[in-house]
Amino acid sequence: MNKLFIIKIGGNVLDDAKQLEIFLKDFASIKEPRILIHGGGKIATKIGNQLGIESNYINGRRITDAETLDLVTMVYGGLVNKQLVATLQHLGCNAIGVTGADANLIAATKRPVKDIDYGFVGDIKPSGVNTALLYELLKQNTVPVFAPLTHAEGSMLNTNADTIASVLAVALSKHFDVRLIFCFEKKGVLRDVNDSGSVITHLSRKLYDEYSEQGVFADGILPKLENAYAAIDAGVKEVLIGESTDLIKNTGHETDGTLITK
Amino acid sequence: MNKLFIIKIGGNVLDDAKQLEIFLKDFASIKEPRILIHGGGKIATKIGNQLGIESNYINGRRITDAETLDLVTMVYGGLVNKQLVATLQHLGCNAIGVTGADANLIAATKRPVKDIDYGFVGDIKPSGVNTALLYELLKQNTVPVFAPLTHAEGSMLNTNADTIASVLAVALSKHFDVRLIFCFEKKGVLRDVNDSGSVITHLSRKLYDEYSEQGVFADGILPKLENAYAAIDAGVKEVLIGESTDLIKNTGHETDGTLITK
Repeated sequence: MNKLFIIKIGGNVLDDAKQLEIFLKDFASIKEPRILIHGGGKIATKIGNQLGIESNYINGRRITDAETLDLVTMVYGGLVNKQLVATLQHLGCNAIGVTGADANLIAATKRPVKDIDYGFVGDIKPSGVNTALLYELLKQNTVPVFAPLTHAEGSMLNTNADTIASVLAVALSKHFDVRLIFCFEKKGVLRDVNDSGSVITHLSRKLYDEYSEQGVFADGILPKLENAYAAIDAGVKEVLIGESTDLIKNTGHETDGTLITK
Repeated sequence: MNKLFIIKIGGNVLDDAKQLEIFLKDFASIKEPRILIHGGGKIATKIGNQLGIESNYINGRRITDAETLDLVTMVYGGLVNKQLVATLQHLGCNAIGVTGADANLIAATKRPVKDIDYGFVGDIKPSGVNTALLYELLKQNTVPVFAPLTHAEGSMLNTNADTIASVLAVALSKHFDVRLIFCFEKKGVLRDVNDSGSVITHLSRKLYDEYSEQGVFADGILPKLENAYAAIDAGVKEVLIGESTDLIKNTGHETDGTLITK
């Protein structure tokens, strides 16, 4: 099977012009099929403040009311997404900016209200991905760039970018050897959280279980590792956690970040 | 050749919830290949005012400075485009929202500065259209929905929606019998501007020349008719000027609007 890189960048990359420039140049230069998923960044908060849209949180989780949905649809789906696409096009990368609504690429369900009503938030599954069109686009050397938005019942839905990346990776594992790359603020997963030089370059399930027992992993990284193994159990070949500026090495054989495998 | 409808709606349709609902239901129900191009509407002005972005005009023409470009990229490319797509998806129409930047669908040049610097405005030609991908999408029953934006040199560009519709119509006339439909605030072109019942249902070049000599056409409609004949001279089979609520009839044989042919 051909390789496919599914690469997620978050606010830390989007908000840093220099880091973003390096990342996009590197991303454009990759030869293999690839998909980019971006988060939001500070610009949504800034524009939201200017428009007088208040951020509502319940138990630390952001609530997407109707006003916030319009805000993220504009900023993530319009401003951020199209600026990334225009820049990538200029770098010779045939990017196409999409949300899960476009061509029904990711069908979602609005999160059911239980204890908390999260508002216009989408829950998604690999079975909701339109892999046929994505496969066709990738075959033609077109590069999908996803904003963190899906849809259901005629409404856009705010959707976690990490989840979109994972769901795309699982759905496309039937067609490709997928390496799912999460760009992160550190070089990789550290053996010693106080030593930035202690990156674990390769993590197998066996080593993961061993380190887990020894309590090696900091609390912050545990959910990421659990998600990584959930993706691998669902068919994704490799997950890589690393820094956006190391993209070229992290799409090669000898990675600088943490390569997670079965 | 197969039929293709290229349909442009402007602010008058977008700003009227009832009219838009009827239009989208009708649009979704059309069986033939089709492309939608939308303008902006009052929402861009409203959000622009909230953000304190001033509208600048020189000789009655709006100038797209950097702030205005961000505004239209957000509102046209994000909010308006994705809301249309989500609604169409819910109506069973497999819409994909795009700008000219996406997959380089329409390559533009930034308008050269002569007497006036229009700012970030795109000029486009039929040769700049990526017809191969559009053809592929249409063949798969996917329905492109264009926001009035193109790109050049790594920047998005504000671009006239009528011009995008015309340029797409000309470029796709190699593959389809194109009917280019401009949705308009009247039933069609009137023989007597004071009599809404005097719609000219069919305008040939011969009749157009005759009526032009007789001074039948009001000043407001003349540029639209000149553009229509420019499209027809460049290979478009038919241009129709009519009301958005008459879409079903206007995509059939017996049209309610003004059908313009060679």
